[in-house]
Order: sequence, then C-alpha cells, then structure tokens
Amino acid sequence: MVAEIICVGTEILLGNIVNTNAAYLAKELADLGIANYYQLAVGDNVERLYDAISVARSRSDVIILSGGLGPTDDDLTKEVCAKVFGKNLVMDDAAKQNIIDIFERRGLSLTDNNWKQALVPEGSTVLYNKNGTAPGIIIECDEKIAILLPGPPHELIPMFQEQVKPYFEAMCEDTFYSKMVKMVFSSESKVADEIKDLLQNENPTVATYAKPGEVHIRVTAKSSKSFDDAKSLVMPYVKYLKDKYGDKVYSTEADETLEESVVKLLKEKKYTITTAESCTGGLIASTIVNVPGSSDVFGQGFVTYSNKAKKKMLGVKKTTLEKYGAVSEQVAKEMAKGARKEAKAGIAVAVTGIAGPGGGTEEKPVGLVYIACATESKVIVRKFDFNGNRNKIRRLTTANALAMVRMCLSDKSNS
Amino acid sequence: MVAEIICVGTEILLGNIVNTNAAYLAKELADLGIANYYQLAVGDNVERLYDAISVARSRSDVIILSGGLGPTDDDLTKEVCAKVFGKNLVMDDAAKQNIIDIFERRGLSLTDNNWKQALVPEGSTVLYNKNGTAPGIIIECDEKIAILLPGPPHELIPMFQEQVKPYFEAMCEDTFYSKMVKMVFSSESKVADEIKDLLQNENPTVATYAKPGEVHIRVTAKSSKSFDDAKSLVMPYVKYLKDKYGDKVYSTEADETLEESVVKLLKEKKYTITTAESCTGGLIASTIVNVPGSSDVFGQGFVTYSNKAKKKMLGVKKTTLEKYGAVSEQVAKEMAKGARKEAKAGIAVAVTGIAGPGGGTEEKPVGLVYIACATESKVIVRKFDFNGNRNKIRRLTTANALAMVRMCLSDKSNS
Repeated sequence: MVAEIICVGTEILLGNIVNTNAAYLAKELADLGIANYYQLAVGDNVERLYDAISVARSRSDVIILSGGLGPTDDDLTKEVCAKVFGKNLVMDDAAKQNIIDIFERRGLSLTDNNWKQALVPEGSTVLYNKNGTAPGIIIECDEKIAILLPGPPHELIPMFQEQVKPYFEAMCEDTFYSKMVKMVFSSESKVADEIKDLLQNENPTVATYAKPGEVHIRVTAKSSKSFDDAKSLVMPYVKYLKDKYGDKVYSTEADETLEESVVKLLKEKKYTITTAESCTGGLIASTIVNVPGSSDVFGQGFVTYSNKAKKKMLGVKKTTLEKYGAVSEQVAKEMAKGARKEAKAGIAVAVTGIAGPGGGTEEKPVGLVYIACATESKVIVRKFDFNGNRNKIRRLTTANALAMVRMCLSDKSNS
Repeated sequence: MVAEIICVGTEILLGNIVNTNAAYLAKELADLGIANYYQLAVGDNVERLYDAISVARSRSDVIILSGGLGPTDDDLTKEVCAKVFGKNLVMDDAAKQNIIDIFERRGLSLTDNNWKQALVPEGSTVLYNKNGTAPGIIIECDEKIAILLPGPPHELIPMFQEQVKPYFEAMCEDTFYSKMVKMVFSSESKVADEIKDLLQNENPTVATYAKPGEVHIRVTAKSSKSFDDAKSLVMPYVKYLKDKYGDKVYSTEADETLEESVVKLLKEKKYTITTAESCTGGLIASTIVNVPGSSDVFGQGFVTYSNKAKKKMLGVKKTTLEKYGAVSEQVAKEMAKGARKEAKAGIAVAVTGIAGPGGGTEEKPVGLVYIACATESKVIVRKFDFNGNRNKIRRLTTANALAMVRMCLSDKSNS
C-alpha cells in the first residue's frame, strides 16, 4: 500500500509555519509499514488542489490530506476532494451536534458559516473531532482511499491516533515491530559503514539516523503471522547491535531520550548530579531539567562563563587557569571536582570549550571542548573536536556531556 | 515568476526529520515576491525524482531543490536534474579544491566517492559552500531555472542568503523592502485583532507571526521604482506600530533575536547580568550565552532547582520559603536580589514556577511562574499564567524573563 500526504494551506507556502503535520503523518505511516513516496504542500486554490488530488489518486492507494477543513470560503479541501471522487456533500448530524456542543461550551454564538463544517461527502466515514469543529473524513471509492484531517496538530494528532491508526491496522495484513537502538560516541557515517551489510537487509530492515551527538539505528520487521513473529525477527538484531556497541547504547526505546536515560540511570544508581558549564552556559542543566521528575537527582547547577566565576563558584585554582588556560583538561577536572564538592552531589559533569565564532586560535580552535566527570572515587576527562556553528557545538557538547555521565556511572570506565 | 520547492530525502518521507528547509525557502521566496504554489518532498529514487523535476519544470519558472547532493550512491539530485535538463556532468575545479581544503582542515582522508560532489552540469553556475563539501548549482535552460542546494540547513541557509538571494534580487523587476516589528508581552491573536485593518492592506502588506512569548509583525512593500520608494512605503507603518506598542517592541530588524537585543541593551547601558533559575533550569543563561560576545555582560548564573540550592546559592530565607512556598512573588524577589549580590552583577533575573506535568495544585497550577528582576535601585516582579507542556512553559518563561530584563532597564518601569 502506497500513501501520499497532501498538506493544504497558504501559510505553508508562505513559510509562515513549518509543516510538522507532514513529518508526523510520515512517521506514523512508516510505523504502520505503509510506503510514502510523495509529500505535497499546496495552497487554498481550487484548480491546483484538484490537480494535486487527481494526480495523487492516480499514483497512490491512500491520500492523506491535512488542513482546509475550516468554516471559511478559503477552506476547500473537502469540496474539491468530493469533486475529484464524484461525491455530493450531505449534512452529517453527529458532526452538526459536535459543532453545537463546542460553541455552547465556549459560550460563542453560531454563524451560518459553521454549518459548512458539518457537510461530508456522501457515503464517507466521519471521524469525530474532540478538539475542534471540523470532523475528519474517510472516503473509500474504487479501491482508493482519501483521508481528510483537520490542520491544527492538536486536532490532527489525536484523531489520527484514535481513529485513523486503528482503521489502517484493521486493514493491514502484516503486523510490524520496531526497535530503536540509540547510541552515543559515534557518528552516523561511521556506524553506517560498520553495519553496511545490515542496511541491505529486507526483513527486518535496518536504517541509521543522526541526531546531534547521537546515532539511532532502527530495526523494523513485518510479519504476516503475528506480532510475536515480527518481534522475533527484530530481537536478534537488537541483541547483535547491543553486543557490538556495548556501553555506547543508551536505550532501545524509540521514545526515550538521552537525558531521560541519564536521569533514570542516576535514580537507579542512587546518585545526585550537578553541572558546571562554561561554553554550554546552562544548556546541560536545562536539558536535564526538561525531564519530568529530574528534581529527584538534580538540585543545583553552576553556569561559570567567566574565569572569575570558575574560581569563585567552583574553586578552580588561579594557577591552573594561568598555566593551562580556561579551555584545558586541567580546568575541566577542577570544575567537576569543585562543583561536586560545592553542591554535595554524587556526580558532577563540567564542560569548558570554545563555541565560536570568535575566540579560536591555531592551538585551541573553535570546537575544542573538554568534558570532565567527577565522582567520589574518580575523575574522567575527554577532549572533543566538534564541527559546526556556535549552537551546534553547544548541542554536541551537551549530548556528549550526558554520554560521559552514563560512562562514568558504568563500572567499566577508568579514572 | 513562480517557484516550486522540491526537498529530496528518504528521511523526510519517513518522518525522521521535519522539513524546515521548505519553510525557510518558502519564506525567503515570499520576501522576494516570488510566488510558490507547490512544495514537494520525494525520496532518493531516480524515477520519482525525474518525474517530480519534469512536472515542476513544466508548471513553474524556478525549481529549488534541496538535499541529495552528498557523496554516496543514494544522492541523486544533481544527476537526475542534469538528465531532465539534458546536461552532462563535468568536474568543477573550484568545488574540487573546496573538498580538498575541507578534508585537510578536518584531518580526514579522501575517498573516490568524494569527487562525485565536485561534478556539476555543464554551463551551470556553481555556488561555493563554505560549510560543507557539496557545492550549490544554478542551471539556466530554456527560460527555466533549477537551483540545487545542499540539504543541511547550516549549509543551505548561508548559501541562499549570500548567493541565491542576490541572484534573484538582480533578476526581479520590483524591489522589496521589509521590516519586522518584534514585540513581547502580547499574543498573536490579540495583536491581529488590534491591527486587523492593517492586515487587509495590499502594499505594503502587513502580517503577524507567533513565536514562544513573542509576536512579530512584518511590513513588506514592493516598488517598481526604487528600493527607497519601497522603503518609504514601509517606514510610516513601522513608526505607527512602534508608537502603538512602545516598549513592547524590542527590535525592528528581522535578524535580531530577543536575546541579542537584551545583550545589546546591557552593553549600551553598561550593565552586567546574572540569572537565578528554578523551573527553566539554565535555559535563560543558555539563551543569553548563545549570543556571541555575551561574555562581556554575562559571567555567571545560578541553577537553583531545589529549595536547598535557593537558600545556599542565593540566600533565600528559609522563612520566606516556608511562608509563601518556592513558587511565589517573595521567593522570586529574594532569588533576584541574592543572585545580583552574589554575582556582583548590575541586574539579576530570577524565575520560579511550575512547569509540570506534575506539581500543580488548585491554588498554584501548572504554568504559574513568577519572574523578578533586581537592579541596585529596584526589584520588579510579575506573575504569569502560561499554557502548554513542560517544554513550552519553560520557553515562554525564558522569553518573558528576557523581556522583563528589557523592561527593567528602561526608565519607565517602576519598582
């Protein structure tokens, strides 16, 4: 089954909004094992919309449309789609009642325009919209399917999850199972080279993805027999990858972020953490705090951008700063040790580096970063040479600092 | 002139990345007055890419392609585009030299694959890529134009700004002038309602955009006469909006971010700043530090997530915490005063709030945030009720904290 995504809206064509609906729908389709060859964005224009839907109907089995279901004359998706599929529009009582309910709840009065939203192509399936007045619609006609969804993500996402996904699942003969092996301390190109044979695999399929400081490897299998059968195809690959990459793997859950895995590990090991940040300026602390419940392990952090702050807040020695410079292994170590002591934390992570664009020298170029971790028994430090602009270097530093914390908490690292 | 955007990459079709390039390019085209009727995403597949480019060529004057210029066999954009336009690929010496330079700089060794990136369609204009090995390409053929850009945004954006935009500007008959009035302490819907007459305007056009904690109003005029003529159409509107919104306006430059305007203002007023953060956990400090040169005004910051840290690092009184709770006007004020004193800074901004998802009560719900600013002569504090998830609440808090700093530094605020 091949699906095509058409997002309707002049605001997309003007670049006023980023088309996150397309990415969301694409990911859901991939998870369902439905191929997606085209994503199109078109404006609220009858002719171009008509052409787009007609072309999609000719080359794809399923057309998923988002947007253009509003009450104004500009909203054309339903009308044009009905025309392409040769259907009349009829009033849907449930959709009408939903509109009445929502207006009552919001204390607003209805205008004639609003009833337009309750019109649906005859013979279609109407999807209830719990977050808005535009119902979703499924048209099935001549072995082609069109699914019309409202544009606002907080309406589209629950409608897809609760009504469209089960619709597809009931239709698919195959079941799918997918695992994501998420790792640090490597690069996508390196991993892709190391497992290039696996990437050619047909079932399960194996694919790599890059995130700042991380590489994700997705293993997806399909089975015509059962979910367990699909799972049994995936798990040996996951085991192989975990064995191969060892401690570099921080999670095999698609939803778990690096910071979540670090907070979880800290809780497991009963450690508290503190941060001492120069070039990241609070980004590591902020990333940890973005995990709900991080207050169990994180109480305070130090943003020590200036040398004075490194001395005063963390007790970094003046002589160390003078002898080695602020961006050095020695200062990173003293920052970590000082922060740990000051915050009375189980572990401290410290970073010092040159994020650019200025401040680089031949000896210490932009992208040079030292990351240190200190516990009661050891201090480890690593040197990194990152590529990218200021923002990217700071993000890479943050990801690798979290990875260092994981490494430091594992038994295998040395002081 | 009508342009069409084609973004190439399987990672888009799988939903692994959000297509921000399409939004960026669409916005730039809109600014240049170039119409954009279609945005398409296709995978790295010869037939579908060939069809997509052929269709675009038949219905649009300009095709802008992004992605698929890498060194691997999967990268097909250049090869397929050359085929559609009937061009051979030839080696470009400047592009070849750029690849050699980049590999030397990174200390990497070249493989045969890499030379593929230096091949360009004969007779095309080659765009220098200062951030990567893939050159951009402009093909002009039979009154149609194809512009091939690299996929990574940090390569695509500077290339567009520095080379593609001037190319279009030289071609356009109309000149455009645009100003962005950027403001805080309001919402897009409120502003859109307040200036709804202006939004109907034809030349200049006026449009509103939302960012977390900010509203941007863009005023764009076109003129067939001159740049100055276009500018003269825009400026009275900018003046009107600045007069109307006063201190809420932090910039009229499209490129200037809120944090940049704050760092600039601090420098002008010769103030240093420090931060004391609870729910944002370092995000305010990190946002300030993301401005190059912020070290002139920012030396240190405090991440005081726990009550203990608030007491120890900032000297917040135990009795205040007990009497009013951590999320209170009183604690926010003491945090700001304490941070300012401790860091010996000219101004301190402090935040304390409930970012959720847990921790909310009927009296103090999720989204309740207090932001305080302290200078030598005054302490101001404001209460906010934000809507959204944890991440959004923290972003809104950060934007409003920066806005509070601006307000506090202006003469009009009261203690």
